[in-house]
Amino acid sequence: MTVTAGILGATGAVGQRLIQLLEPHPDFELVTLTASDASAGHPYRDVAKWRIDAPIPETIAEMTVRRTDPDDIPDDIDLLFSSLPSDVGKRVEPELCEAGYVVSSNSSNDRTAPDVPLTIPEVNAGHLDVLEVQREERGWDGALVKNPNCSTITMVPTLAALDSFGIEQIHVSTLQAVSGAGYSGVSSMEIIDNAIPHIGGEEQKMEAEACKLLGAFDGREINWHEADVAASCNRIPTIDGHLENVWVETRDEITTEDAAAAMRSYESLDLHSSPDPLIHVFEEPDRPQPRLDRLHGNGMAVTAGGLRETSNGVQYNCLAHNTIRGAAGASVLNGELLLRDGWL
Amino acid sequence: MTVTAGILGATGAVGQRLIQLLEPHPDFELVTLTASDASAGHPYRDVAKWRIDAPIPETIAEMTVRRTDPDDIPDDIDLLFSSLPSDVGKRVEPELCEAGYVVSSNSSNDRTAPDVPLTIPEVNAGHLDVLEVQREERGWDGALVKNPNCSTITMVPTLAALDSFGIEQIHVSTLQAVSGAGYSGVSSMEIIDNAIPHIGGEEQKMEAEACKLLGAFDGREINWHEADVAASCNRIPTIDGHLENVWVETRDEITTEDAAAAMRSYESLDLHSSPDPLIHVFEEPDRPQPRLDRLHGNGMAVTAGGLRETSNGVQYNCLAHNTIRGAAGASVLNGELLLRDGWL
Amino acid sequence: MTVTAGILGATGAVGQRLIQLLEPHPDFELVTLTASDASAGHPYRDVAKWRIDAPIPETIAEMTVRRTDPDDIPDDIDLLFSSLPSDVGKRVEPELCEAGYVVSSNSSNDRTAPDVPLTIPEVNAGHLDVLEVQREERGWDGALVKNPNCSTITMVPTLAALDSFGIEQIHVSTLQAVSGAGYSGVSSMEIIDNAIPHIGGEEQKMEAEACKLLGAFDGREINWHEADVAASCNRIPTIDGHLENVWVETRDEITTEDAAAAMRSYESLDLHSSPDPLIHVFEEPDRPQPRLDRLHGNGMAVTAGGLRETSNGVQYNCLAHNTIRGAAGASVLNGELLLRDGWL
Amino acid sequence: MTVTAGILGATGAVGQRLIQLLEPHPDFELVTLTASDASAGHPYRDVAKWRIDAPIPETIAEMTVRRTDPDDIPDDIDLLFSSLPSDVGKRVEPELCEAGYVVSSNSSNDRTAPDVPLTIPEVNAGHLDVLEVQREERGWDGALVKNPNCSTITMVPTLAALDSFGIEQIHVSTLQAVSGAGYSGVSSMEIIDNAIPHIGGEEQKMEAEACKLLGAFDGREINWHEADVAASCNRIPTIDGHLENVWVETRDEITTEDAAAAMRSYESLDLHSSPDPLIHVFEEPDRPQPRLDRLHGNGMAVTAGGLRETSNGVQYNCLAHNTIRGAAGASVLNGELLLRDGWL
Repeated sequence: MTVTAGILGATGAVGQRLIQLLEPHPDFELVTLTASDASAGHPYRDVAKWRIDAPIPETIAEMTVRRTDPDDIPDDIDLLFSSLPSDVGKRVEPELCEAGYVVSSNSSNDRTAPDVPLTIPEVNAGHLDVLEVQREERGWDGALVKNPNCSTITMVPTLAALDSFGIEQIHVSTLQAVSGAGYSGVSSMEIIDNAIPHIGGEEQKMEAEACKLLGAFDGREINWHEADVAASCNRIPTIDGHLENVWVETRDEITTEDAAAAMRSYESLDLHSSPDPLIHVFEEPDRPQPRLDRLHGNGMAVTAGGLRETSNGVQYNCLAHNTIRGAAGASVLNGELLLRDGWL
Repeated sequence: MTVTAGILGATGAVGQRLIQLLEPHPDFELVTLTASDASAGHPYRDVAKWRIDAPIPETIAEMTVRRTDPDDIPDDIDLLFSSLPSDVGKRVEPELCEAGYVVSSNSSNDRTAPDVPLTIPEVNAGHLDVLEVQREERGWDGALVKNPNCSTITMVPTLAALDSFGIEQIHVSTLQAVSGAGYSGVSSMEIIDNAIPHIGGEEQKMEAEACKLLGAFDGREINWHEADVAASCNRIPTIDGHLENVWVETRDEITTEDAAAAMRSYESLDLHSSPDPLIHVFEEPDRPQPRLDRLHGNGMAVTAGGLRETSNGVQYNCLAHNTIRGAAGASVLNGELLLRDGWL
Repeated sequence: MTVTAGILGATGAVGQRLIQLLEPHPDFELVTLTASDASAGHPYRDVAKWRIDAPIPETIAEMTVRRTDPDDIPDDIDLLFSSLPSDVGKRVEPELCEAGYVVSSNSSNDRTAPDVPLTIPEVNAGHLDVLEVQREERGWDGALVKNPNCSTITMVPTLAALDSFGIEQIHVSTLQAVSGAGYSGVSSMEIIDNAIPHIGGEEQKMEAEACKLLGAFDGREINWHEADVAASCNRIPTIDGHLENVWVETRDEITTEDAAAAMRSYESLDLHSSPDPLIHVFEEPDRPQPRLDRLHGNGMAVTAGGLRETSNGVQYNCLAHNTIRGAAGASVLNGELLLRDGWL
Repeated sequence: MTVTAGILGATGAVGQRLIQLLEPHPDFELVTLTASDASAGHPYRDVAKWRIDAPIPETIAEMTVRRTDPDDIPDDIDLLFSSLPSDVGKRVEPELCEAGYVVSSNSSNDRTAPDVPLTIPEVNAGHLDVLEVQREERGWDGALVKNPNCSTITMVPTLAALDSFGIEQIHVSTLQAVSGAGYSGVSSMEIIDNAIPHIGGEEQKMEAEACKLLGAFDGREINWHEADVAASCNRIPTIDGHLENVWVETRDEITTEDAAAAMRSYESLDLHSSPDPLIHVFEEPDRPQPRLDRLHGNGMAVTAGGLRETSNGVQYNCLAHNTIRGAAGASVLNGELLLRDGWL
């Protein structure tokens, strides 16, 4: 039985990736697209400035875009994927959940709310059960699940793999692609022959979300991980793929061999969009690189390399495709988890 | 009285910057250029692929290039600036010092030798006196002084400014420009829409050189600073200007105001190429940026910004022009210090 | 005696270049800056997102921005430089001229109007006298003079130099920098690892403006040149500097030596901002290049190279700095011409 | 029955693309790889700096590289694909053909020799029969077929489509990707924030090859097309995909509708690598663009757009993937043609 799905905010960069991933998806049938009022009522083809290097799927191109409004969304949609701007998401997503819809959202609002699961399925699928608390406390028939920020998703699988050594401190420096800011987020005059050492709120997001993701759910509450996380975020002139330099300080001794083995053996899930292995560790010291490695595992794998021992842990580099594993693919994967665990 | 000067390895990227800085220099008269045997005997114009965005100075363009060989260098040169490949420098520089020449070198060989001063004049001018040990031990009439690696120079002035708070640990992530690898060091296919998280030996250079630079000279020996330094180096698609994310853990408590004040009030020197102030601290959170800020202080200033308090210190970003402050200008400045302190 | 000057639209990319050129200018004293209503009333520093790689001049930084409205502009301004969006220029510039102001404008409106001089001073200074017709017909006390589009300016000096051979046909293909579209004109996602073979209306502007510029003024009318011009315009990932491939078909026979000699000997003017020579012709076949050559003559020279004979003329490449010679500097130069010829 | 195939010069940029295309090819079985003497004897994985954004096929990675020498190539190879440097190709290819091998070559040597077919199968498959003349005159058992230069291939299908209107003159300006120069052909310092209006010999190649390709084979000789072709070639900062601005002057009148219809209906072939349609014509005025459109038809289609009428013909833009349709894919397609026509 197919699950009917819709996309909230279907014209933006993440919305377009959602279409690319959902159109051929075996479990979901994409039947509804919403966008701003200005776009509503028009065929998708006419209002989306399609910027993916493959054509718009024909069936999608002709779909009429709807308003991002509970009244304009059909009742029989099983699952809504949300890539709304966070201010819109903050307002609309709770309305939709109250109206009974299940929402898998990439928007940054409510990610750290105690009763909202923030999940990377291969890392903390168990957190999904906080939805029971959510329904109980909010009186919703629907449900709201979030995926983390793209820069957080890139590093967290590697951290989860290393946490058996007892992570105490994390330093992370990011080299982020321009697509993370949306189609008009970074102007060419800002970034050609340049780098920008600031992305508003990004460092705070990474520091908080990582601790929530690595935390333990005790049946009622998610107890955040107590590692000290310090992030420094940079935008560089790459199209797709966030590269990160990570230092991890651990309670137990750890060698580069230990770290590589832990990453390589970290288990993936048997979900349609989960790659196997989840983390690919390069031997070559100059990998991963954004242009060469962002499409590993169809853009859903995390790649790592450059492992070195430090005085109290290890350092390494990791990379993921920011609009696939880091955004659209993350939401789709959460949708697959919702389906597997019986929430749809 | 003018000091006569020569450049060893004058055709490369750093050699060209040396020409640009020395030709109008009030203290030095550029009279000799050397290059590889293949270039020797030809006018500079014909063998240098000039790639600076200002014309070759006319008088330089017509100079005949000499071999990089003590026999081919006039005896009456007071000071040689070296931008030789390190394997050539390792062989030729000691020969020249033995033959009585004073060499201010940007090459990476011998930087950590105990009796070779590694200096950033505004930071550790006093280390120059280790030249007495050098002459005594090596029996040289000449002298060899080194400037650090471009990525080390970028951060060390800010670290020196903060060391009154007792630096215990440093994490640094670099976003380095392609010019640091020389004209053909990074191919366009490697770096367009990409970043490379590896520069051979660079992390080790930063970790060692920073401790030597911040060390104390006791009249006989340079006692290296004991801070724990962990560096992660990346190449990104910028032409000039190395940007760095730095975390400093200090013994004493430090606020962002303390850190900014310490940087702003860190003293410069009264040398021709020293900027005043040495460190410019931005209020804007998104600065410094390579393209906008690399020419601060004629490319000799360090700029900083993005200060944030962490659990045990501060984090910030800093930037310097890698082929001016980080290479050619660093050698010239060391030449000015040699002149001021009576070594010429 | 100094001429007091103002800038209409001072916060944009061209407005910032105007400030950079006018602040140290010996003839003009910059006393007024205007911008949109949202910016009016604030210090320039706070409303301009300054993006030039040199600091804002201090005196300018503190100036209070005014509204772009005749009522808000002081009466005693001698000359207004306009870098308004063309729809605003179309409305406001005639109002200002009617109110008695002399306006040197870079905006694209009214460039091909018969009684509006469109001038590159070194090429067609004589066209300025059509201002008498303008005042007569429009009943203005002020005056409106225009400079051409940046892509037109780049090629026209070389065409003027070759026109003694009788130009009959011109093909031109442009490789234009992103700054030509303003700070937010081209998003990074559109242009990294890409080129866009379309700039709305640009080809038509080049085709029309070139014929007007190369035309003859007979005392009453500007008789447009009858050459057939075909332009193809492209945006590429460069910051500044428009590069153009030009083919010229001439009535008379022409060799590459003829063409180079004609360009090199083409006369410049004795105006402050005019470079001498106006056109620099390279011998090297791979020049001019945007990054290396855009600052020739302080950004006011045109550079050319790559001359080849074709079956019926010559082909070559030319380049100019699009926001200096192609925009802000062009307006300033027209201001200098207005001053020299007694219109101020 | 499978055709056994080898690659001459398998480690370079085009060699890697050949591997990517041949490894899954239904007609060819890749059994031999050659490279320079320095690489011979080593596993391919160890000597190729693999730079395609998909992993090296496992079976290929372990193959031992051979010397590019007739003595080191197995006798039972049916077809050799050559991506040798042209000076090596000039020497080695005739030796191999004399030794009985059939060679489909991308190297630039011998492309304009009268008895060497230069083919784009969809355009001039019939030229292949000049191989009879070649064998007769040279006494070869083998055969040598060439594909054109990448910049020539990009435009010729569109020209062939328009030639029913009688092409008399062609002007073409190219915006070429860096991969066309091989992995180390263009340094990053040459091309970031820059464009280079010169590619040695490229303009002459385009002018000659286009006339040969569009010529008619009369059974003995290829009579070159008499159109006057003028090319201007530029390198820009894109990774893959050559974009070209073309003006065509025709004997008969032609509208943009005529031109679009002729391109759209131009027939493709029923060969494995031929796309259908061969030419995709965009309605959107700002397409084709390298990053968005280079993978049309798996990188084998030509895309066109921006049609405008001129005084004596039409102008338009066209694009093709330079290392697939323009090089490796072109050689593979010629191999498919050789197979179809019974030369293997």
